[in-house]
Amino acid sequence: MKRVLVTGGGGFVGSHVLAPLRERGFEVFAPRSAEIDLLTPDGAQRAVELARPTHLLHLAWYAEHGHFWASEENLRWVEASLRLLRAFAAAGGQRAVVAGTCAEYAWDLEDDLREDVTALLPATLYGAAKHALRTVAAPWAGQAGVSLAWGRIFFLHGPGEAPGRLVASVARALAAGQPAETSSGTREIDLLHVADVGAAFAALLDAETTGPVNVASGAGCSIREVVEALAAIAGRPDLLRVGARPDPPGEPPRLVGDVTRLREEIGWRPALSLEEGLAATLEWWRAQFPTR
Amino acid sequence: MKRVLVTGGGGFVGSHVLAPLRERGFEVFAPRSAEIDLLTPDGAQRAVELARPTHLLHLAWYAEHGHFWASEENLRWVEASLRLLRAFAAAGGQRAVVAGTCAEYAWDLEDDLREDVTALLPATLYGAAKHALRTVAAPWAGQAGVSLAWGRIFFLHGPGEAPGRLVASVARALAAGQPAETSSGTREIDLLHVADVGAAFAALLDAETTGPVNVASGAGCSIREVVEALAAIAGRPDLLRVGARPDPPGEPPRLVGDVTRLREEIGWRPALSLEEGLAATLEWWRAQFPTR
Repeated sequence: MKRVLVTGGGGFVGSHVLAPLRERGFEVFAPRSAEIDLLTPDGAQRAVELARPTHLLHLAWYAEHGHFWASEENLRWVEASLRLLRAFAAAGGQRAVVAGTCAEYAWDLEDDLREDVTALLPATLYGAAKHALRTVAAPWAGQAGVSLAWGRIFFLHGPGEAPGRLVASVARALAAGQPAETSSGTREIDLLHVADVGAAFAALLDAETTGPVNVASGAGCSIREVVEALAAIAGRPDLLRVGARPDPPGEPPRLVGDVTRLREEIGWRPALSLEEGLAATLEWWRAQFPTR
Repeated sequence: MKRVLVTGGGGFVGSHVLAPLRERGFEVFAPRSAEIDLLTPDGAQRAVELARPTHLLHLAWYAEHGHFWASEENLRWVEASLRLLRAFAAAGGQRAVVAGTCAEYAWDLEDDLREDVTALLPATLYGAAKHALRTVAAPWAGQAGVSLAWGRIFFLHGPGEAPGRLVASVARALAAGQPAETSSGTREIDLLHVADVGAAFAALLDAETTGPVNVASGAGCSIREVVEALAAIAGRPDLLRVGARPDPPGEPPRLVGDVTRLREEIGWRPALSLEEGLAATLEWWRAQFPTR
C-alpha cells in the first residue's frame, strides 16, 4: 500500500495534486494547515504519526504573493522542512518529493536551465532557502535510506491563483471586461497549467528518480505571447494594454527549463497545450464573474 | 557596550575564545548547554532574552569525534542555528559570526582554498549542513540588517581535544611513553593551535568584515611533518610508527586555506608557530599523566 502525506494540500499546487495521486493508487493524507501547523515544534511529528506515510510530498511553504521572495518566513520553512524530513524517515518513510523552484538557478543565463549543468546561484532569499534545504537534505536522504526527488517549479497559472500574479491578473481583467495592463512583456518564461504541475508531481512521486527534476514545459514563451493568447481566447484584444506598466527590475530575461529528465526518466508530458491551459484558466475566471 | 552571546562556549574552540573576547572589551554571556539547550524549541529565544546581545558568536554544533561527519544531528543544528539567528535579529542584534568549516569546499583541489574562488561542493553531510546554513543565512542577514561573517575552521589541536583525533592521539601516546601509530602521513593540512583559533574568532567578531573568512594558518604541512615535530619536541622519535595505520579512504590530499582575508581585512596572524603550538599541546598532555 502506498500511503502519502501531502503538505500544502490546500494550496495552489496542492489542490491539483490530490486527484492524480489517488488515480495512481495512493492513499492520500493531506491535513489542512489549521489541523496541523508544520511551523510548530511538534507539527511534523504529529502529521507523520497520523499519516504513517510510505511517501511524502512536501509542497507547503510560505507563498504570499509579493512577500515570499524576501520574507524571513523562508527560514522558518527550512527549519520546518528539515523537521518533517527527519520525522518522515524516523517513521520508516521510503520516498519523498519536495517542491523546489527555478529560483534556485543562476538567473543571468540565456540557455535552458538544466538540473545537472546550470549553476545554482539564487538571486532571492526564497531561492536561497530552497537551495539550502536541498543542499543538506540530499546527502542526508542518501544516508537515511530515503529516496528523495526535488521538483523545481517554473511558472504556472490556473484556478485559485493569487489575483496579483501575471496570468491571473490579465485573465481576471479580461473576464471582468476591464482593461488588462501589463509590462512590455519581452521576458521569456516557461509556463504550465497548475493541473499539469499537480500531475507532474504525482508522477514524480510515483517514480524512482532521485535528485532535481525540472517541472516545466520546456517551451519558452514571451509574456507578450501569453497575454495576447489570453486576449484572443477571450475575444477581447481591445482590452490589452501591453507596455502600460513598467518592467519590473531585476527579473531575468529568460527562464526556461530543460525537461529531458521529466520526459525521459519520469515519462511525463503536459496534457494541456499553452492555449488549452490558458483557455481553462480564463474559463475559471469567467465563472468568478457570473453576472457578466 | 559590546555584549556577546557565545554558543558552544564550553566546547573545544569555545573555551579558548572567552578570554580573547573579554580582552577586546566584550561583556561575555556564554551559557552552558545544560543551562540552555539550543536544540529545544525555545532554547534560542531564552538565550537571547537572557543575554540581550549586540553580538553573537555561534560555535555550538554536534561535534562528536568519529560521528559528526555523517550524523543526522547536523540537520538539527541547521534548524537550531536558523532559530538562533532569527531570535538574535529580532532582539536587535547587530553583528554575528558563525563557525563554518573547510569541509564546505570542494576537496579535490590542490590549490589553497579561497573564500571567493574555490567551489563549494561538500563531500560530507557535516560540510553540506554548514554550507546549507550559510546559503540561506547570508542573504537573510543582508535583509535583516545583521552584519554576518562566517569563519571557516581548518585543522586544530590543543588542550581538551578529543583523544581520537590526530594530534591528540599522537601527543597523548608520546606523553604516556607509548608507541604512536599513524597513517603514512602524506596528506597536507593547515593546522592551528586552538588558542589561536579562539583569538581569530574574537578578532573576526570585533571586525566589520562580512562573508566567509578562512580561519587558518595559510601554511600547509604534511601529517608526517606534524607528528615528527611532536616526537622531536617530546624527545621520543623512537615511539613514532609512521605508516603503521592504513590511510583513511576519501580524504583529500591537501587542505590548506588562503588567509589573505584573515590577514588583510581582519589584520590577524597566529601568535604561535607550528612548533610552539605543538609544544604547548604536548605539555598539556604531559600534565594529564602526572605520575610519569
